[in-house]
Amino acid sequence: MATELENRLRSLGIELPTLPTPSTTYAPFIIANRTLYISGQFPMMGEVLHYPGKIGGNLSIEDAQKAAHLCALNILAQVKIACDESFERINRCVRLCGFVNAVEDFSDYSKVMDEASNLMIQVFGNLGRHTRSAGGVSSLPHNACLEIDAIFALEDEEATPFS
Amino acid sequence: MATELENRLRSLGIELPTLPTPSTTYAPFIIANRTLYISGQFPMMGEVLHYPGKIGGNLSIEDAQKAAHLCALNILAQVKIACDESFERINRCVRLCGFVNAVEDFSDYSKVMDEASNLMIQVFGNLGRHTRSAGGVSSLPHNACLEIDAIFALEDEEATPFS
Amino acid sequence: MATELENRLRSLGIELPTLPTPSTTYAPFIIANRTLYISGQFPMMGEVLHYPGKIGGNLSIEDAQKAAHLCALNILAQVKIACDESFERINRCVRLCGFVNAVEDFSDYSKVMDEASNLMIQVFGNLGRHTRSAGGVSSLPHNACLEIDAIFALEDEEATPFS
Repeated sequence: MATELENRLRSLGIELPTLPTPSTTYAPFIIANRTLYISGQFPMMGEVLHYPGKIGGNLSIEDAQKAAHLCALNILAQVKIACDESFERINRCVRLCGFVNAVEDFSDYSKVMDEASNLMIQVFGNLGRHTRSAGGVSSLPHNACLEIDAIFALEDEEATPFS
Repeated sequence: MATELENRLRSLGIELPTLPTPSTTYAPFIIANRTLYISGQFPMMGEVLHYPGKIGGNLSIEDAQKAAHLCALNILAQVKIACDESFERINRCVRLCGFVNAVEDFSDYSKVMDEASNLMIQVFGNLGRHTRSAGGVSSLPHNACLEIDAIFALEDEEATPFS
Repeated sequence: MATELENRLRSLGIELPTLPTPSTTYAPFIIANRTLYISGQFPMMGEVLHYPGKIGGNLSIEDAQKAAHLCALNILAQVKIACDESFERINRCVRLCGFVNAVEDFSDYSKVMDEASNLMIQVFGNLGRHTRSAGGVSSLPHNACLEIDAIFALEDEEATPFS
């Protein structure tokens, strides 16, 4: 699956970012009961946070969209490592939850979160379609503008997961 | 189950709202590993958002309670469709999470969220009792005052799920 | 497991708080599909909320850290009851999600949430490592400064879960 995922990403021209050093107190992902839980991911390239601040404040919708794409790339980078370690297979993306650091009158959630959702569909096809929740937060770790966590379903069947 | 659920709702005099057109980028619900995940639901009647704005601002507690009831009805409407498609059975409601668009000094969460929780208990009996989390958000998609997502457990046993 | 957990806590000198009276409309925990979901826990000692207010406002980082520790103790107290009722065994801590009632320019999430994360690792060893998400909320139930919910994986195997 990791190889398949790598091939898939390569064919789509998607390059995964280097992941930041994991926290010593929590895990970037956990697999339990055939479910892959991924910690909230930030718009990081390695150790560098991109687009810090508040959407609708110092950041435009376009900044927020790039941040969402970067969060989703970090999610995929975690999925890739999780596959290697588990030898299990991704069945599908189940859920994305977005914590959006935006000004009080912000309501363009779809424009921002769709960037992350569309990447999942681009990579996993119909099995990338997921449930989604999103809400506005007053602040975030690292002064990030966006945090997205994810749940994937795993299975150990041989069939290719890509639709 | 869908028929049972329909009968149950009819006997309770509960009419489900027409669901809004689903997003093209995410799914209203996903079933994976015998778990039904439902995307954040809003106080919608079809395409129309009710009670837009901020609880404690332009909206009263009573408005917020009606919004919570409507979010919960949309959750039930998704459950009904999910049952039809999956041929699986609802075992129980597992979790509701409320994203509450309220003013900073708001703390009457129980009054609002209980409207959603009570509907689950009314419909599913003891199996409607769920875990719950809720927090105040600075804004929401569509300028909604409330978003509630849900998790249900499924099983394919024959026993009636209603207690 | 409950006995093991009690012994483990005793050996660590950890005393669990009395739990508050449960809500009539939602459950403090639900077990479904070998997963233990725990409702958002607050910094409560029995019926008394500690450290009410806003982190970075009337509350210091040290207050918030004590609140996080207390939320985590309440999570463990729920785990203990859940074990007794289910006769199932905790496999591992899977996820903590923190709703942090903080001022807008707050970004010291790690300092606060690590108090909860470290307690899980202290009690469950390597199996206490979990995924984590956290975001700033504008307000919380009871005017709490922090709410943390949790997911644990269960298994019914005989092997001791402690690493």
